[in-house]
Amino acid sequence: MGLRERKRERTRAEILEVARALFLSDGYDETTMEHIAEVAEVGPSTLYRYFPTKDELVLAPIIATVGRLAGLLAERPAAEDLDTALGNALRGYLEEFDSRAQEINELRDILDKTARPRAQLWEVWNQDMATLNDAIAARAGADPAEPWVSITAHATKLVASMAIDRARDDPRPSTSVDTAESILAVLRSSVVLPRLSGAATG
Amino acid sequence: MGLRERKRERTRAEILEVARALFLSDGYDETTMEHIAEVAEVGPSTLYRYFPTKDELVLAPIIATVGRLAGLLAERPAAEDLDTALGNALRGYLEEFDSRAQEINELRDILDKTARPRAQLWEVWNQDMATLNDAIAARAGADPAEPWVSITAHATKLVASMAIDRARDDPRPSTSVDTAESILAVLRSSVVLPRLSGAATG
Repeated sequence: MGLRERKRERTRAEILEVARALFLSDGYDETTMEHIAEVAEVGPSTLYRYFPTKDELVLAPIIATVGRLAGLLAERPAAEDLDTALGNALRGYLEEFDSRAQEINELRDILDKTARPRAQLWEVWNQDMATLNDAIAARAGADPAEPWVSITAHATKLVASMAIDRARDDPRPSTSVDTAESILAVLRSSVVLPRLSGAATG
Repeated sequence: MGLRERKRERTRAEILEVARALFLSDGYDETTMEHIAEVAEVGPSTLYRYFPTKDELVLAPIIATVGRLAGLLAERPAAEDLDTALGNALRGYLEEFDSRAQEINELRDILDKTARPRAQLWEVWNQDMATLNDAIAARAGADPAEPWVSITAHATKLVASMAIDRARDDPRPSTSVDTAESILAVLRSSVVLPRLSGAATG
């Protein structure tokens, strides 16, 4: 990363931090772009260049995680079995989450109170799912439209998001990998799945 | 249902049908509330009384399904084991979906093209998940905060929504129960779950 790019990254991170603090203290709707620029000590036009809308100040750190689990999976050595590779990718993903848990949980608290940016979580989720689906298919040499690929992607993302949700409710440091491990244990042995075969309709 | 209520239901259904047809033929943004009222042969004030916003004309049939799976589960005889009860509830839910598949798939085609109402699907999903979680806990006499309850609710809803999504891509009539059966078979035996325990970090 060159000097100029490094500076840009730092400015970006500072703006995001200032915005988050103001949203939390003053409320999302009450915080203006002008006030964010003032506190971050940048000109309003600089702020708008980095973040054209206020929504992006909440969503950027979340949108930045789209494709991350898929990327970590693609980086695993080819010799690893799919389940081990998925496990290591998930571990890496959750460790990154744990290291930023406070920031992400603050963003989610803001999102809980603001319908408009929250709206985009649906797309974020779907895009992330699609990248994971394709990464699993690529590693297995399978057709991305294979049902098992999609089911594996959904199950993996379910574990990741449940672990993150629980870490949010119970914010002890660095627990999301352990939580994922308990969720996986339930999925392997004691999840109650609907029994359709031979079930009487009534 | 009294006569008056019956008439109200009929008017409501007619308005929804007209709106859906116009959204599909003319586009959601291009369709005005005035035009919908005109084609449905009701006064604009009647239309607004039934549906205060245009978004509700797309979302109402989807919002109406919130809690339905939970409701079907609660109606199952107490003698049924949880897995059988969940299976029968899921079967009923998917059969209802199959009987309205065309309508729901048309609504989803409209939602794919319109960000604002689509935004609310996130809330709809979360609300529906919460009702299913509580219905499972109630039937099992378990604490709704138990991890296995939440995992079971998530897995069940995953099966339901994947079955519905596939039925949408492959719109042969009445296939979503069969699709759910195949998804459950994969989840039971050949889903690849991430392996975290003892995995080397790398």
